[in-house]
Amino acid sequence: MHTILRSNSKEVIIGIDKPFVIIGEKINPTGMKKLGQALVDGNMDYVIQLAQRQVAWGADVLDVNVGHPQIDEIAMMRIVVETVRSVVDVPLCIDSNDPQILEAGLKAAPGKPLVNSVNGEEKQMASVLPIVKDRGAAVIGLTIADEGIPPTAELRLAAAGRIIERAAKIGIPVEDIIIDPLVMTVGHDFKAALVTIKSIELIKREYGVNMSLGASNVSFGLPDRHSVNSAFLALAIQAGVTCSITDPIKLGSSIRATDLLLGKDANSMRYLKYFRATEKLRGQEAAAK
Amino acid sequence: MHTILRSNSKEVIIGIDKPFVIIGEKINPTGMKKLGQALVDGNMDYVIQLAQRQVAWGADVLDVNVGHPQIDEIAMMRIVVETVRSVVDVPLCIDSNDPQILEAGLKAAPGKPLVNSVNGEEKQMASVLPIVKDRGAAVIGLTIADEGIPPTAELRLAAAGRIIERAAKIGIPVEDIIIDPLVMTVGHDFKAALVTIKSIELIKREYGVNMSLGASNVSFGLPDRHSVNSAFLALAIQAGVTCSITDPIKLGSSIRATDLLLGKDANSMRYLKYFRATEKLRGQEAAAK
Repeated sequence: MHTILRSNSKEVIIGIDKPFVIIGEKINPTGMKKLGQALVDGNMDYVIQLAQRQVAWGADVLDVNVGHPQIDEIAMMRIVVETVRSVVDVPLCIDSNDPQILEAGLKAAPGKPLVNSVNGEEKQMASVLPIVKDRGAAVIGLTIADEGIPPTAELRLAAAGRIIERAAKIGIPVEDIIIDPLVMTVGHDFKAALVTIKSIELIKREYGVNMSLGASNVSFGLPDRHSVNSAFLALAIQAGVTCSITDPIKLGSSIRATDLLLGKDANSMRYLKYFRATEKLRGQEAAAK
Repeated sequence: MHTILRSNSKEVIIGIDKPFVIIGEKINPTGMKKLGQALVDGNMDYVIQLAQRQVAWGADVLDVNVGHPQIDEIAMMRIVVETVRSVVDVPLCIDSNDPQILEAGLKAAPGKPLVNSVNGEEKQMASVLPIVKDRGAAVIGLTIADEGIPPTAELRLAAAGRIIERAAKIGIPVEDIIIDPLVMTVGHDFKAALVTIKSIELIKREYGVNMSLGASNVSFGLPDRHSVNSAFLALAIQAGVTCSITDPIKLGSSIRATDLLLGKDANSMRYLKYFRATEKLRGQEAAAK
């Protein structure tokens, strides 16, 4: 199954037979004071830098989140999306819980964007899915039920099913749903990643949809988070995850290596190209400092 | 299925329900001039250092290989094994293609050692398996046939089956066979790791035996080998590999992270302990320089 996203002139295809798709996570002021302040000041220089840098480091799609208590998020979403699309030619992922902010972002986004996210709560499905349908966008569906995040893989499968069915009812095709089976922190619950991997396997078998994961939550509170995050991505990709909202600078090499190991990179072309490009960037960024 | 190895006083259990077992690879002069020269000089200081350092960094078992054109390998195997067992209390893996060298190592090794390795060639099985049986050792069986390394997972499964059956005929129990399904370099053949992963899955389903992999061959010739090796180990462990002859200093953190993610590390105890111990070692080793 292929989920197709588009920018002005480029198409990104997400699918199990395609290279893993990296959705750059860095345009998000949550926990990132410098970006928050830039947005409050209406200064787009840092946004431009984050957009260009992530694409240079291999992001295929860029997430755009403007959640910040001191700004008019509806107006700001439009401004940031217009800024980003003016400097990079990649599909965008419009990130908010608020339907009005999503609408503003979707209106300004080029081509066919992605929405991050809807979940399996009745109220949220009712408010977000029609917006996705109207815009002809794709959407990330989090396996959250009205009762919260299900503790078992079977219940996460059920939550995924509810989103897929509800979306189908209003005419959103299943290939435009990307399920996020969620991962909790293994530091808190050492079975957390196992539940996620089992959820991925069940959802893949039952629906064959594309799946996304945020890959850094899993290591929260642990030392040497990189070892945990990169191993988790490898395990998740093997199980069936096809894209991730993540940091291309930190995790790009693990992702390209996993694609290569899983036979998705003929003659190591992407792996070698990625290495050469990032080696050059690393040199340039060190020199700039 | 549990493969049990023993040193003088310690037992190491290899099994899918146990933490991944690290067999330290560094006591091997192949491609390591400094060790080769030390052996030629009969100087055991460097051997002692390699043994102690690998155990400090988390090796559960130590591989001992003395292959070098300028030395009497039979005599040297005995000397190195006696040296290693006098300074560390871990089971040993006696590593040679030559039955006489294996016998010398097995005679000197404490407890219940491992033999590295036998393969599926008739001649090799006939010469190595009786030695393993006589000593009551365990053995690594490489999935090599008389025709060479099989190109498909099905043929590697067949090679594994031949070793297991031949061993059974002379009374070596299946739990004392650890199959190595082999991995070629992905830089040469981008489907190589996939064939290995499929082999692991087939052998696990058919025989349920323990499996080992050398984890660095896969990245030969590629840049940023660490990203490839660590991702490959995660994929191999998920598929069913339970031990590896590898470098504990380079790959220990990825292995402990994968165990944690696969639910084999209650409350992250081993992961956290490993991190604290190696952080301290890193500091000490930097200070010593």
